Amino acid sequence: MELNKRQDAILQIVKENGPITGEQIAERLNLTRATLRPDLAILTMSGFLDARPRVGYFYAGKKNTLTLTDALMNLKVKDFQSMPVIVSENMTVYDAICHMFLEDVGTLFVADQNNYLQGVLSRKDLLRTSIGTQDLNKIPVHIIMTRMPNIAYCTKSDFLIEAAKKLIDREIDSMPVVNETVGGVEIIGRLTKTNVTKAFISLAQIHEL
Amino acid sequence: MELNKRQDAILQIVKENGPITGEQIAERLNLTRATLRPDLAILTMSGFLDARPRVGYFYAGKKNTLTLTDALMNLKVKDFQSMPVIVSENMTVYDAICHMFLEDVGTLFVADQNNYLQGVLSRKDLLRTSIGTQDLNKIPVHIIMTRMPNIAYCTKSDFLIEAAKKLIDREIDSMPVVNETVGGVEIIGRLTKTNVTKAFISLAQIHEL
Repeated sequence: MELNKRQDAILQIVKENGPITGEQIAERLNLTRATLRPDLAILTMSGFLDARPRVGYFYAGKKNTLTLTDALMNLKVKDFQSMPVIVSENMTVYDAICHMFLEDVGTLFVADQNNYLQGVLSRKDLLRTSIGTQDLNKIPVHIIMTRMPNIAYCTKSDFLIEAAKKLIDREIDSMPVVNETVGGVEIIGRLTKTNVTKAFISLAQIHEL
Repeated sequence: MELNKRQDAILQIVKENGPITGEQIAERLNLTRATLRPDLAILTMSGFLDARPRVGYFYAGKKNTLTLTDALMNLKVKDFQSMPVIVSENMTVYDAICHMFLEDVGTLFVADQNNYLQGVLSRKDLLRTSIGTQDLNKIPVHIIMTRMPNIAYCTKSDFLIEAAKKLIDREIDSMPVVNETVGGVEIIGRLTKTNVTKAFISLAQIHEL
């Protein structure tokens, strides 16, 4: 059984200070809550930690009750999602391509001033446009983006296995993680095949526990 | 427990005709061997079928010995790989982009006349070049491709979990599956994050068995 260094550090902090929130653990490690999420998910699923809403994490001791099946079926989108990269619908295609390289992502989301989802731009959309005859500095992204309601999305509490199926069924590499409100669909994250691949790898880590 | 229709059909064929090879099963279903590979892997891992090299598949009955952990750690690249899409090093960048859309893949492999691996072209490489000032009809792909020995690759008998780690560590979406020979590195397949995502989903199917 082998935990990685960060998981060891988390376990030590919770043993000494639990119950303690994810934000507080992150603060002590000088990391963001988002960075810790997969580790906290693994430690919780493997029975080292227990988590209670609005209370925090506490040490549970190793219970050996985990099956990989439980782990797989219980993974949530929120444990593996990334930060969204959002642009406005009037950005030019040229600037969007530069922004994609700068942020090193494969998909940009387009939102209005309220952060409500308007469209999605994939690397494929941008490549298709870039070999056309039009001046990329004159085409705004809203001309070429995939629009609502044709956008596949998920919520942070969806099961990862269901979100993965949606990526495969829709033949897309990435989709926004959203919060559906009365006013519109708020973008709060990004779920990609890279995230799913990392989850696949983390299942093997659970096996090693 | 629920098998999908194709898995049911395979099981029926093997019950009546086993031992029978994968090629023969594929022929009876009017499908390619490659298409059947994930189903055969799942049926074998879940104990419905046994497979013997140079003999074929035969019906084993459900043994209930499978754990998801065994399944995860035993998945091989060959069970999930796709067909490679190969171009020559003198193809222009413009033609390569068209070829990529035509074949609907995210990565092209560049090979010499002997099918030996020379380079890799990602959608990202092509997008970067397409916003430059050069005429895409005048740049051959060998100018912009990633070259040997800087190419990450795997073999068909590698464990899928190791190949998935390589995709994440090298920050790539796809890599060639190769056969290392005395003359050079032969391209025989393509392993992508899409393949890994499908493997992740197939683990949940095993759970349902």
